[in-house]
Amino acid sequence: MNGSDARLRWEELSRRRIASYAIFDLYSTLRAHGDGRRGEFVVLHAPDWVNVIPLVRTAEGVPAFIMVRQFRHGAGMITTEFPAGIVEQGEDPRDAAGRELREETGCRAGKLTLLGRVQPNPAFMGNWCSTWLAEDLSREGETRLDAMESLESLTVPVAEVTARMGTGEYINSLALVALSLYNRHLAEGA
Amino acid sequence: MNGSDARLRWEELSRRRIASYAIFDLYSTLRAHGDGRRGEFVVLHAPDWVNVIPLVRTAEGVPAFIMVRQFRHGAGMITTEFPAGIVEQGEDPRDAAGRELREETGCRAGKLTLLGRVQPNPAFMGNWCSTWLAEDLSREGETRLDAMESLESLTVPVAEVTARMGTGEYINSLALVALSLYNRHLAEGA
Repeated sequence: MNGSDARLRWEELSRRRIASYAIFDLYSTLRAHGDGRRGEFVVLHAPDWVNVIPLVRTAEGVPAFIMVRQFRHGAGMITTEFPAGIVEQGEDPRDAAGRELREETGCRAGKLTLLGRVQPNPAFMGNWCSTWLAEDLSREGETRLDAMESLESLTVPVAEVTARMGTGEYINSLALVALSLYNRHLAEGA
Repeated sequence: MNGSDARLRWEELSRRRIASYAIFDLYSTLRAHGDGRRGEFVVLHAPDWVNVIPLVRTAEGVPAFIMVRQFRHGAGMITTEFPAGIVEQGEDPRDAAGRELREETGCRAGKLTLLGRVQPNPAFMGNWCSTWLAEDLSREGETRLDAMESLESLTVPVAEVTARMGTGEYINSLALVALSLYNRHLAEGA
C-alpha cells in the first residue's frame, strides 16, 4: 500500500449475479471512487485453473513436455497447450493438477512443484491460474475425458515448444505463462 | 493439419448473440463433431488487445520499463502491468499500441516492434493480444484517460519487474506473456 492507492482504488457497494453459464457466471458490481465517481462494471466469475508442465525425456534422452492438442471453442481452432483445467469446488489446486494430468495424458506424477500463480484476466475476472511442474511420471492408464472433450497428447522437445510459442497452434497465453515460469524455475537453479 | 484433426475438430452450425456488455458480447455457438456429438458452447467476443513494453533507462543507466498501476475490477485489487488496452474498431494494432502508450504514460515511441501474438483465452474467447516493444521514447504531454480510468505510471528496473512477476501486484498473465516475449526477443540477439 502506498500513498497513491486511495487515488486508484474503487470500493464495491453491491454486487448481483446477472447470468449463469456452464463455465462462468456474470456479475454486475456497483463501485464508488473516492473522488465521487460511481460506475457499474461487469465481471466474470470462473473457477480457478491449473496448468501442468509434464517433464519427460524422449527415447534419445532429450528433455520434452507432454502437450495436449484440442479444439478450442473460443478460438475456433485446434491448439497445442500444456494439460490444464479447472479446480473443482473444494479441491486443492495440487490435487487438481494431478487429476488433470491423469485425465488428459493418463500419467501420474511422482512430484508436483508449484511454479507460480497469475490471474488470467484481472480486468474483468478474479480467478487464479496456478502452474505446476510434474516430474517422475508413470503411465497409469487411459485418458478420461469429459463428454464434450476430445484431445490427444503428444511429446514435444522443450526446445521445440520454446521456439513455437506464439505461433501456429501454440497461441494460448496461459501456456506461454507456464513456459516462462518453468524457465524462471530453471534459472533459479532449482 | 494432420490425420487426427478430424477427430478433434468441431464445426459450427450456427451462432447467436445472447448478451452485450460494455467490454464484450456473449454468443452461443451450436457445434457438431464428426462422431455425431452436438453441443452448445458460450463464447465471449472482445476486441483484440495490445500490450506495450516501454523500454527506457533510469538516471543511473539501468534498463527499465514504464509500468502502470491501476485498480482492476475483475481482480478487485491494484495491479502493476505494462501499458495495455483494446484495439479500436478498424484500428491497426501498431497504432493502438502507440495510442495506449501515449494515453497511459504521456510518451510517444520512436520505434514500435511486434514481439508476438497470443490468444488470452482460446477456451472461450477468440481475440488476440499483440505485444509491442516501444523504444526511443519522448515525453509528449499529459496522460489521457477514459472517464472511468485511474492509473499512475512508474519506471521500474527490468530486473525488478522480472523478479516480481507472479507475486504481489504483478499477477496479470498478459504482463508475464509480454515479459517472456521480450526475453525471447533479447535472446534472439535482436
